[in-house]
Amino acid sequence: MDMDKARELLENVKYGDVSIEQALEDLRDLPFKDLGYAKIDNHRELRVGYPEVIYCESKTPEQIKGIVEFMLAKGSNILGTRASEQAYKLVKEICPKAEYNKEARTITIKNKEAETTSTYIAIVTAGTSDIPVAEEAAITAEIFGNRVERIYDVGVAGIHRLFDKIEIIREAKIIIVAAGMEGALASVLGGLVDKPVIAVPTSVGYGANFGGLSALLCMLNSCASGISVVNIDNGFGAGYLASMINKL
Amino acid sequence: MDMDKARELLENVKYGDVSIEQALEDLRDLPFKDLGYAKIDNHRELRVGYPEVIYCESKTPEQIKGIVEFMLAKGSNILGTRASEQAYKLVKEICPKAEYNKEARTITIKNKEAETTSTYIAIVTAGTSDIPVAEEAAITAEIFGNRVERIYDVGVAGIHRLFDKIEIIREAKIIIVAAGMEGALASVLGGLVDKPVIAVPTSVGYGANFGGLSALLCMLNSCASGISVVNIDNGFGAGYLASMINKL
Amino acid sequence: MDMDKARELLENVKYGDVSIEQALEDLRDLPFKDLGYAKIDNHRELRVGYPEVIYCESKTPEQIKGIVEFMLAKGSNILGTRASEQAYKLVKEICPKAEYNKEARTITIKNKEAETTSTYIAIVTAGTSDIPVAEEAAITAEIFGNRVERIYDVGVAGIHRLFDKIEIIREAKIIIVAAGMEGALASVLGGLVDKPVIAVPTSVGYGANFGGLSALLCMLNSCASGISVVNIDNGFGAGYLASMINKL
Amino acid sequence: MDMDKARELLENVKYGDVSIEQALEDLRDLPFKDLGYAKIDNHRELRVGYPEVIYCESKTPEQIKGIVEFMLAKGSNILGTRASEQAYKLVKEICPKAEYNKEARTITIKNKEAETTSTYIAIVTAGTSDIPVAEEAAITAEIFGNRVERIYDVGVAGIHRLFDKIEIIREAKIIIVAAGMEGALASVLGGLVDKPVIAVPTSVGYGANFGGLSALLCMLNSCASGISVVNIDNGFGAGYLASMINKL
Amino acid sequence: MDMDKARELLENVKYGDVSIEQALEDLRDLPFKDLGYAKIDNHRELRVGYPEVIYCESKTPEQIKGIVEFMLAKGSNILGTRASEQAYKLVKEICPKAEYNKEARTITIKNKEAETTSTYIAIVTAGTSDIPVAEEAAITAEIFGNRVERIYDVGVAGIHRLFDKIEIIREAKIIIVAAGMEGALASVLGGLVDKPVIAVPTSVGYGANFGGLSALLCMLNSCASGISVVNIDNGFGAGYLASMINKL
Amino acid sequence: MDMDKARELLENVKYGDVSIEQALEDLRDLPFKDLGYAKIDNHRELRVGYPEVIYCESKTPEQIKGIVEFMLAKGSNILGTRASEQAYKLVKEICPKAEYNKEARTITIKNKEAETTSTYIAIVTAGTSDIPVAEEAAITAEIFGNRVERIYDVGVAGIHRLFDKIEIIREAKIIIVAAGMEGALASVLGGLVDKPVIAVPTSVGYGANFGGLSALLCMLNSCASGISVVNIDNGFGAGYLASMINKL
Amino acid sequence: MDMDKARELLENVKYGDVSIEQALEDLRDLPFKDLGYAKIDNHRELRVGYPEVIYCESKTPEQIKGIVEFMLAKGSNILGTRASEQAYKLVKEICPKAEYNKEARTITIKNKEAETTSTYIAIVTAGTSDIPVAEEAAITAEIFGNRVERIYDVGVAGIHRLFDKIEIIREAKIIIVAAGMEGALASVLGGLVDKPVIAVPTSVGYGANFGGLSALLCMLNSCASGISVVNIDNGFGAGYLASMINKL
Amino acid sequence: MDMDKARELLENVKYGDVSIEQALEDLRDLPFKDLGYAKIDNHRELRVGYPEVIYCESKTPEQIKGIVEFMLAKGSNILGTRASEQAYKLVKEICPKAEYNKEARTITIKNKEAETTSTYIAIVTAGTSDIPVAEEAAITAEIFGNRVERIYDVGVAGIHRLFDKIEIIREAKIIIVAAGMEGALASVLGGLVDKPVIAVPTSVGYGANFGGLSALLCMLNSCASGISVVNIDNGFGAGYLASMINKL
Repeated sequence: MDMDKARELLENVKYGDVSIEQALEDLRDLPFKDLGYAKIDNHRELRVGYPEVIYCESKTPEQIKGIVEFMLAKGSNILGTRASEQAYKLVKEICPKAEYNKEARTITIKNKEAETTSTYIAIVTAGTSDIPVAEEAAITAEIFGNRVERIYDVGVAGIHRLFDKIEIIREAKIIIVAAGMEGALASVLGGLVDKPVIAVPTSVGYGANFGGLSALLCMLNSCASGISVVNIDNGFGAGYLASMINKL
Repeated sequence: MDMDKARELLENVKYGDVSIEQALEDLRDLPFKDLGYAKIDNHRELRVGYPEVIYCESKTPEQIKGIVEFMLAKGSNILGTRASEQAYKLVKEICPKAEYNKEARTITIKNKEAETTSTYIAIVTAGTSDIPVAEEAAITAEIFGNRVERIYDVGVAGIHRLFDKIEIIREAKIIIVAAGMEGALASVLGGLVDKPVIAVPTSVGYGANFGGLSALLCMLNSCASGISVVNIDNGFGAGYLASMINKL
Repeated sequence: MDMDKARELLENVKYGDVSIEQALEDLRDLPFKDLGYAKIDNHRELRVGYPEVIYCESKTPEQIKGIVEFMLAKGSNILGTRASEQAYKLVKEICPKAEYNKEARTITIKNKEAETTSTYIAIVTAGTSDIPVAEEAAITAEIFGNRVERIYDVGVAGIHRLFDKIEIIREAKIIIVAAGMEGALASVLGGLVDKPVIAVPTSVGYGANFGGLSALLCMLNSCASGISVVNIDNGFGAGYLASMINKL
Repeated sequence: MDMDKARELLENVKYGDVSIEQALEDLRDLPFKDLGYAKIDNHRELRVGYPEVIYCESKTPEQIKGIVEFMLAKGSNILGTRASEQAYKLVKEICPKAEYNKEARTITIKNKEAETTSTYIAIVTAGTSDIPVAEEAAITAEIFGNRVERIYDVGVAGIHRLFDKIEIIREAKIIIVAAGMEGALASVLGGLVDKPVIAVPTSVGYGANFGGLSALLCMLNSCASGISVVNIDNGFGAGYLASMINKL
Repeated sequence: MDMDKARELLENVKYGDVSIEQALEDLRDLPFKDLGYAKIDNHRELRVGYPEVIYCESKTPEQIKGIVEFMLAKGSNILGTRASEQAYKLVKEICPKAEYNKEARTITIKNKEAETTSTYIAIVTAGTSDIPVAEEAAITAEIFGNRVERIYDVGVAGIHRLFDKIEIIREAKIIIVAAGMEGALASVLGGLVDKPVIAVPTSVGYGANFGGLSALLCMLNSCASGISVVNIDNGFGAGYLASMINKL
Repeated sequence: MDMDKARELLENVKYGDVSIEQALEDLRDLPFKDLGYAKIDNHRELRVGYPEVIYCESKTPEQIKGIVEFMLAKGSNILGTRASEQAYKLVKEICPKAEYNKEARTITIKNKEAETTSTYIAIVTAGTSDIPVAEEAAITAEIFGNRVERIYDVGVAGIHRLFDKIEIIREAKIIIVAAGMEGALASVLGGLVDKPVIAVPTSVGYGANFGGLSALLCMLNSCASGISVVNIDNGFGAGYLASMINKL
Repeated sequence: MDMDKARELLENVKYGDVSIEQALEDLRDLPFKDLGYAKIDNHRELRVGYPEVIYCESKTPEQIKGIVEFMLAKGSNILGTRASEQAYKLVKEICPKAEYNKEARTITIKNKEAETTSTYIAIVTAGTSDIPVAEEAAITAEIFGNRVERIYDVGVAGIHRLFDKIEIIREAKIIIVAAGMEGALASVLGGLVDKPVIAVPTSVGYGANFGGLSALLCMLNSCASGISVVNIDNGFGAGYLASMINKL
Repeated sequence: MDMDKARELLENVKYGDVSIEQALEDLRDLPFKDLGYAKIDNHRELRVGYPEVIYCESKTPEQIKGIVEFMLAKGSNILGTRASEQAYKLVKEICPKAEYNKEARTITIKNKEAETTSTYIAIVTAGTSDIPVAEEAAITAEIFGNRVERIYDVGVAGIHRLFDKIEIIREAKIIIVAAGMEGALASVLGGLVDKPVIAVPTSVGYGANFGGLSALLCMLNSCASGISVVNIDNGFGAGYLASMINKL
């Protein structure tokens, strides 16, 4: 439609129905969206084939079902994060191949098989309680077409566990570390590897962890280089960013 | 030396001077560092040619001079961050080609020309007050051998300035955003580009910015994907990480 | 009544029943409210016709019903904010035309049609999760007699959505922005329009948003001019203030 | 220039040198800034005649002098905020009519007399220590062409002082309140007037005022309606916003 | 028993069975508690007749019942604070005259009529939501034998309400102010009266009140003199302290 | 003067020069201050003879000198708090009997000898570093006519020091406790005495004392009854309130 | 297995199947864990006989049961902390001798009787509400083989209670203090004893205790020497550390 | 003197001048300090030979000199912490053997050689910037008669440095860890050793370290057992406590 307006304008110029001065004026008045929108957003074109993502936290199961229904029509893969089991059940009704990961609280629908990267993302957790956040990252990375290696429960309180797995971590292209409590694993790993580390503080802990603040501050102040941080419990954000870097 | 001990042990085994059981026992007792050290650190080998970095904040000018003296012997490039002009003057005495960037407060010594990447890192600031932090990032990235494009003073209060430069930002391999006050530029950029964004909150501002807390929280809570955050005013960290990703 | 006392006093002076000294004494002793009250409060006269407002948060449904009952007698329009559905049901019993907005959690009773302003208030949200707060603002503004335009889900992560609607926002007399997470929309809008912007941080988000603190600090530190901030989730306050300004 | 490109394109269409399809393609590729820029920013045209503002906090006196020099050429009025006396002296060298307000730390240069509004902005402070912030607001409002009434030192500890001045405050079109310590004056005023109140928390106080946090939180949580808040010590922001509203 | 030991020692001295030096030595060894205890605590004797107080928050209904049972034997008046209705029901079983105040969440048992003071404590609230805290203070003060005057819902948003009641507040010997949100009432009252003011911040409010922090900071930073502050929602503490002062 | 206006009005009524209706109107229009002012402020009459207080923190030495000059004319006693030695020197020029307490940073001028109370205020500090705050309280209390007993350096780390002085503390009418670091002395004293305790947290300490926050929170959460708290380092406030209570 | 690889290597060296140079190379390549692991962890050997500990907070009852089942096979004593009663019931099914402490929320299984130390750990609480945390510490210390003395409810509000028990506390080898609210007991005890004090802040309290922050800061800032602090409510950590010190 | 009173009492009993009942009464009335003081403090007797400690932070050089002078008379060793060089110079005048450690800011005077323990305290730092705090701990421990091993600059960013020194750390009786920034070293060490770890967060760092808060929270939330924490930068406290434990 917008393009139609532009075309009409050009035709009018071509056939002399509109003076150039007038056309310039009109061009300036063309609703911003008509040209600008496409322009601004054309980087999004590159993302074609990307899965659609639904952040389910504050949506009702019915709303989620509705959004999925709409997306299914487009045939893309779908990822729902922070989804309740109840929401999953509703989605399942309209899409039997939908899968639910209870720990990560994700709904995934794979409509087409994405090619998987040869390089991989290592996803590392300090404890078992950090696994839900790590799984959210892992499932995100996977549905975006990345190979993922999970290395869980290798926190610094028993550092040999980490050394035992260090080779597989070092060979990753990028590393995600999910850790709660004092979040020291990010710093230790940062010193052991020569790859970018995305640190995800988790809210695991109690008392003076203040809902993940301790791990967050720890990671931001890491004395090791090559570490950056996402929001507390933001497994999706870490997985998405890691995917972006893994595909560079 | 450590390898000498191991060699001696093996020779003793070979010539029967030590039983296999005893050798196993000895092997277990070999000081950790002797083997483990090399092992743990061998990823550092890959870093050969990396510039040496000195964090000058809490060191006296004399200490900095001493460290530089030691490093010069190794012939590597040198980067001193958070350096006072006074420290620079002392360094200059022993190394006339040392350069000082007053804004970024960096000392740089280029002993050998590093090859520069063809892909580049875009370094973007919201305001002019964020430039010192951005320059620390830029100088870091450059001495690590990266091509850098500086896009300064394109904050969201006049968003057309950002759009004016959006093409050069989009074509970067990775983007650093330094912003103080409300730090909104990171989110806006995150929605406009399809590249990893490293956000550096700066302490620029006053009152309820609480020394950079406002920008830090803003960036951590960004609704755009593909953004991660480093410590407040940590230009070096952003530059180092960007270099790592740019070279992937 | 108070005026009656004053009149009586003056009559007594006039007819010599009370000496001037005594009257001066009495005047000083007239209960503060009798004169002062009216004086202080006479600006409230201007508000005649204003809807009555009930903040329902910490009141029982029974208390709310009682207050509504009392207000109905005065014939004014009524707005109940932060009202539970249960409270609404009780109110409905005594006032069948009461309406409930589930999202905004408001009860509204329109006893007389207020004239609506020709200028309008634009109410903008960053995401869909900010809509309840925005709706509280919208319903407040409407029952105070303002024309309202809702522009929802135009957050900075996809800034073209905002540009698409920028004309309608620019033509408003005043703009309310409700945004959670990093709250960057307020700054971006502040740079795009030449109208006062009332920013409402919402508690939408998780982790380091600390219950809305991130959006609050972001908005307070905005580098754009013309922005002021109300309490986290305070849709009512924003709507009320916008109404006040819209009617200037 | 940008318009030149567009004109050239249209001429090419007109004379058949370029097909319409090709022109559509080119149009889409016209650098964003070329059209969009003007579009986005054309609301700024309305601001013609506005004084230029320089935030001097993190700029050197030399930089400030340079910026003033550039602005003088355009003939607009100029306002420098958070300016040191040293900066003023340098500016004075190139512009003898520059004035400095020591308390407010502002540099003002009036090149043309702006028309002054008939309605006025009341600027109220709780104590004498809040005056510097209030003066920044007042001088800002004045150079933007507003009539200002100053009502200083009427804090709640001696509330009769406020009542004594209440009439002049009530007749303002909009009110700015600057208060530190507990910042209660904003709430009290909010209950006494029927006008929008812009509250500026100041950092005046000590101990548990935590650099202005106490006044900030107090004002954000005000139980009176019609109040919004700007950053701690942000006199400029309050003056700018008040000017915007005063001119509605 | 302890006294017995001391007596025995003195008898031994008297009859020469123990030398004075030895007795001095023994005296030094007498268990601390034996003398010290009584000494330290003898100020508590003055409190005879004081009601017994039970802080019920973290106790089970059964525990509370048990403690009441024990206290009843001593015949004193009893005050249970932060008590659930369930706890009250259990207490009622063993003490039919126990009374429960649902708002204040107090259990009171009056076994003997305490004399009531002629001077009174004024208990003032800003809003109706602050009444539960005020009632805890009032009931505490009453069971400790004080006359109490309740002046509720006179917050600063409608300051005439306060002036209307100012005389009764001024004639109190001491004043308690309970206020949430911005807590400005304490400052205003502090400026209007010449009596000690005990300010109780309440957790009433939302968003940036951060659980009562806003009112707490406001009250601590009050610019009026004669105000001191107790913990958030600590009605009991305010009532107890006011009773202490009222009886001076 | 104000009374003169009222008298004139009444005379006009008496002699029929003004109708009652008109007089009612005028009465309503009498400037608020004229009647209300006196009314509101008449509690201040009781304070006649009170020393005048100057909070010197944010005033220049010249301003302070000016204020003192003005006050001297009234003949009252004068207390300047948070005064620099420089300010004192200027004051000394115009008032040779002015005295300066270097520790407490107070200027005192005694123009007339106030009667001293027979009951006394005990002022207790935990350490020697808390003495400046305590002295501010003591000097305040003394110039307001109170007998003061100083009991310094009796902190809980060596609790026998406290017990050694407990009798003199117990016999006070009211007790001020100034303590930094963990501020535990307030709680301990609160349990040992049956008198109101005003706790003044001081900013003494380092690290996690966060400028006095540790002592402030400690005192607010005291498990002992009868304690209330003023702002960090607010010796004046404690002394003023104690004086008020001591004179009840 | 790892040792098998090492043995094979040595045999190959011994019998000349592998050159020493090659063996050195291989040795360097032996997976880190094979040698390093044992080395790093051999301090754990010393811990043989230590009970196994399960932190149950974020584990399902089924997971806990599974872990216990696995541990039972090893015959060690087992301690489950922060366990729900439901988890206990499941554990009880497979291990009838399992015991549950409702207050401390611990599951304990004693498979072999550990020798108990002759020296003891004194565990002291300020109030009865701190007992659950203290019991977690006590049960931890006991299952690790320590003699424990419990001294509960001796807070500073009635300090004679503490003195009454001071002898038994002084004779301990190490002391744990659990206290909420203002946490002053740690400081007082620290001044009375000459033994290490482990302070456990508890979350007991309300309002400005901010979930235990007040007690935490108080304890960290203690003016008494010999005190160190663990996380809020971390009874296990205190018990474990005390056991470690008690056995030195 | 106190003992004199007691002796006189006993003599009066012995010679029948006072009845036993009367003596019991008198005994009860003996000022608390007279007996109780000695009693409470007699644990301090054990400390005879302990160095005297002066916290110099808020004392003038003259005051420090005076205190040292007084202490010298008693012949004990002396430790002054947080001392300026200026204070040292004054002390040096009266005590030529006084020594000053510029980094640790300690003054030490050794009047008698204390016996040194055979077991030792390992003092470990993450970086070189943490050394001043570590030295304060080391010098404290040494003057209290402990053998100390310093292991500096072994932070987790290059963990092999730590492993290189792990044996000497493991053989200590107790370990002090001083670390700023993210403070992760404490957790890592806690997992590698089986000895008590005293963690000292330092204020080293910038930005989101918030004056040491990041390291403090990290250490409090450590997932390793056997760790306790002292105040930020509290080297003295750590050294004192370690000495206490080392001598158990």
